[in-house]
Amino acid sequence: MEILKQRILEVGVVISDQVVKLDAILNHQVDPALIMELGKEFARRFAETKPTKVLTVESSGIPIAFTTALELGIPMVFARRKKTLTMDQDTYSERVPSFTKGIVTDIMVSSNYLGPKDRILLIDDFIANGDAARALIRIIEKAGAELTGVGIVIEKLFQSGGSSIRERGIRVESLARISSLAGGRIQFE
Amino acid sequence: MEILKQRILEVGVVISDQVVKLDAILNHQVDPALIMELGKEFARRFAETKPTKVLTVESSGIPIAFTTALELGIPMVFARRKKTLTMDQDTYSERVPSFTKGIVTDIMVSSNYLGPKDRILLIDDFIANGDAARALIRIIEKAGAELTGVGIVIEKLFQSGGSSIRERGIRVESLARISSLAGGRIQFE
Repeated sequence: MEILKQRILEVGVVISDQVVKLDAILNHQVDPALIMELGKEFARRFAETKPTKVLTVESSGIPIAFTTALELGIPMVFARRKKTLTMDQDTYSERVPSFTKGIVTDIMVSSNYLGPKDRILLIDDFIANGDAARALIRIIEKAGAELTGVGIVIEKLFQSGGSSIRERGIRVESLARISSLAGGRIQFE
Repeated sequence: MEILKQRILEVGVVISDQVVKLDAILNHQVDPALIMELGKEFARRFAETKPTKVLTVESSGIPIAFTTALELGIPMVFARRKKTLTMDQDTYSERVPSFTKGIVTDIMVSSNYLGPKDRILLIDDFIANGDAARALIRIIEKAGAELTGVGIVIEKLFQSGGSSIRERGIRVESLARISSLAGGRIQFE
């Protein structure tokens, strides 16, 4: 998407050859009109797969998963990163290392909101090594639900997350595909 | 809002005299159409206060803050709960105990996205004791920004959060006002 690439070039802050910060529009401050457009694009691309729910993981994935679900007219579920007093006991959980946070967390989804009848569209903001996406896919499998596809706002092609999931025959759509951050310069495919 | 009260009665799970779970529509699974209506209602109530940004704290506040900001045509900022590798060094931070999680966390907002020129509408899903809201208000004050009001989806009137903020002369609007959860029964004001 051209509008997304333009905004990434305008506000993206390259902090290493591996990491670009988009705190101005996506990960801390959020541009609602832009995120609405991205959600409409995911809905357009995945409507034919007939998802019944959109799944993401807190927190940065929530706005884009929300707008996708709003446009598709289906519920959104966000996996939570730790057990709280108000979470159900019956949960599917997986351990996931976070590339940007440098820590391991447990993510979980209640079996009340994910089950064998669900067709799940997985949506997230970034894909790097794909650890979060693979953990969510394992949760979908545990629940007996069907994965209809994976939508990612920004794919870093020099990391293996996207390709590792495509190799399993899963459809992955990314709206901006970054081929390199070398020398502090954002290059798209 | 009648539609919100109806949904709370339909899906709310009272787990103590103090806590009602709304994981089916708000805190884990999210009903996008409902959240869109709530955002429109906050926008309608607070448009005259001329906010320049909507502020919330991750994660459950994000969808409702997002739809409010979308409707107002302004950015949304979500305070983050811990420092990540991709956060700025220049942040305003506050310590906040979580009523439902039973833990203390640090929340922070980058000074890149909150400053003296901003007029902030604070939006959150629940208010109980008001610890999160007061921490966000302290962050707004530290940044030199102006608070235009506080919008809360569900206010628990038997806890002091809402009234403690109103006592300071701040406008607080809540869309559903629960007066009691005693005996497992949700009672509205």
